[in-house]
Amino acid sequence: MRSHPDSESLIATAHALADAARHATLAHFRTARLGVEDKGAAGFDPVTAADRQAEAVMREILAERRPEDGVLGEEMGTVAGQSGLTWVLDPIDGTRGFLSGTPTWGVLVAVSDAGGPLFGIIDQPYIGERFEGGLGRARLSGPRGACALRARAPRPLSEAVLFTTFPEVGTPAEGAAFGALSARARLTRYGLDCYAYALVALGQIDLVVEAGLHPYDIHAPIAVIEAAGGIVTDWQGGRAHRGGRVIAAANADIHAEALEVLRAAHL
Amino acid sequence: MRSHPDSESLIATAHALADAARHATLAHFRTARLGVEDKGAAGFDPVTAADRQAEAVMREILAERRPEDGVLGEEMGTVAGQSGLTWVLDPIDGTRGFLSGTPTWGVLVAVSDAGGPLFGIIDQPYIGERFEGGLGRARLSGPRGACALRARAPRPLSEAVLFTTFPEVGTPAEGAAFGALSARARLTRYGLDCYAYALVALGQIDLVVEAGLHPYDIHAPIAVIEAAGGIVTDWQGGRAHRGGRVIAAANADIHAEALEVLRAAHL
Repeated sequence: MRSHPDSESLIATAHALADAARHATLAHFRTARLGVEDKGAAGFDPVTAADRQAEAVMREILAERRPEDGVLGEEMGTVAGQSGLTWVLDPIDGTRGFLSGTPTWGVLVAVSDAGGPLFGIIDQPYIGERFEGGLGRARLSGPRGACALRARAPRPLSEAVLFTTFPEVGTPAEGAAFGALSARARLTRYGLDCYAYALVALGQIDLVVEAGLHPYDIHAPIAVIEAAGGIVTDWQGGRAHRGGRVIAAANADIHAEALEVLRAAHL
Repeated sequence: MRSHPDSESLIATAHALADAARHATLAHFRTARLGVEDKGAAGFDPVTAADRQAEAVMREILAERRPEDGVLGEEMGTVAGQSGLTWVLDPIDGTRGFLSGTPTWGVLVAVSDAGGPLFGIIDQPYIGERFEGGLGRARLSGPRGACALRARAPRPLSEAVLFTTFPEVGTPAEGAAFGALSARARLTRYGLDCYAYALVALGQIDLVVEAGLHPYDIHAPIAVIEAAGGIVTDWQGGRAHRGGRVIAAANADIHAEALEVLRAAHL
């Protein structure tokens, strides 16, 4: 477990950011006020007023409380800092799920240094559920109370539960590699965005495998899952904090077994 | 809107069943106490202690409060009644989601006569969300308060959001028909089981299309969606209360447009 002399301030600030983003996103969730735009020229990539307002309010808090730190956010780009710390923010991870009214999108908040994420929060505002990990913490608080996060014990891949967000996963080659893994797992489920990473940390599932991620998609999940005893790497077993192809695993055994299948299928 | 002289009793009983099932299922959700078995010889069809206990407790309540009514439940089969009414129960719709710790499985309770479902409840115990419809009601109560259910207004299929539970949908032919529809929709999402029907009633999405359903999977969704102004039929436009291939639509326009695509693709 990594530590930092400013732990108390970092944790308190992360919760303040998540609280503010929870408020900002819920003001728009399941309302008719959503202003949907296409962010990219190709495909369907909605950006909502909720997304932008949540990131703006988080940046305001950071400007006041942590003006020396850098900020990397999905909506408003990167601001370099002087402290060596960067806040990595995704105001709504799972915008498509948000727009569809599902309760499995999330607010992602992480604070990272050159060594990677130090502390992260995966927050589900509608349920009122918050998964946090790093700097000595690994905890869920939600509608049924609070509990420690602990990723599950090893079981063979043939007994494992695997999640990803989109059935096509990424490129055709990435999709084929995922298919090879899925064929070996007991159960594959789709559609949960960041909530699937929270389920790894909670000890409910064994694997999440995705491709084409951005750094802001994965910093908070890395912090939460590692704090719960799990492992997050890229498909080669290297560090995952830059995004791209990511595998999150409940333990070293299932990580190794899944990685072998992905490597063999995706050369 | 259909009516019944016993409306008050039926609605109160349905809520009592959902309350009891909420308690019984939450006692097992995300615990290590799950006793998973394979129900069928082929494939992965888990049955949990939670499933069976929830249905047993609902049947006890019905034996006491509504002894003349029939019962059709997922776990314990059919008991014929003398009243012309049948309670259609699925203690956990979305067992795989339940086993994975997701918050989108549900308890389904419906009371039906020869004309179809009169009243239904889709309950999500962990979130504390209950969607109810029929006998003059169309309502959501949940963690953010209560609101009326109203399915969304027409928009073209090219702007529509489509849900189904499994990417393969059913047989290869059924999957191909779904694929033809999905290719015409704006966005397709997977994995929510009964929660997707609740999102149609809530006005958040336009279509749910599935195949291979059982009657207990669809009676409650029919009641809730019809009460919210939506339409549920089979892929030929006929009644859906026997299960099989089902399309749930927010309104008559999108229903007609989607049905035409399904019919053309699935001859």
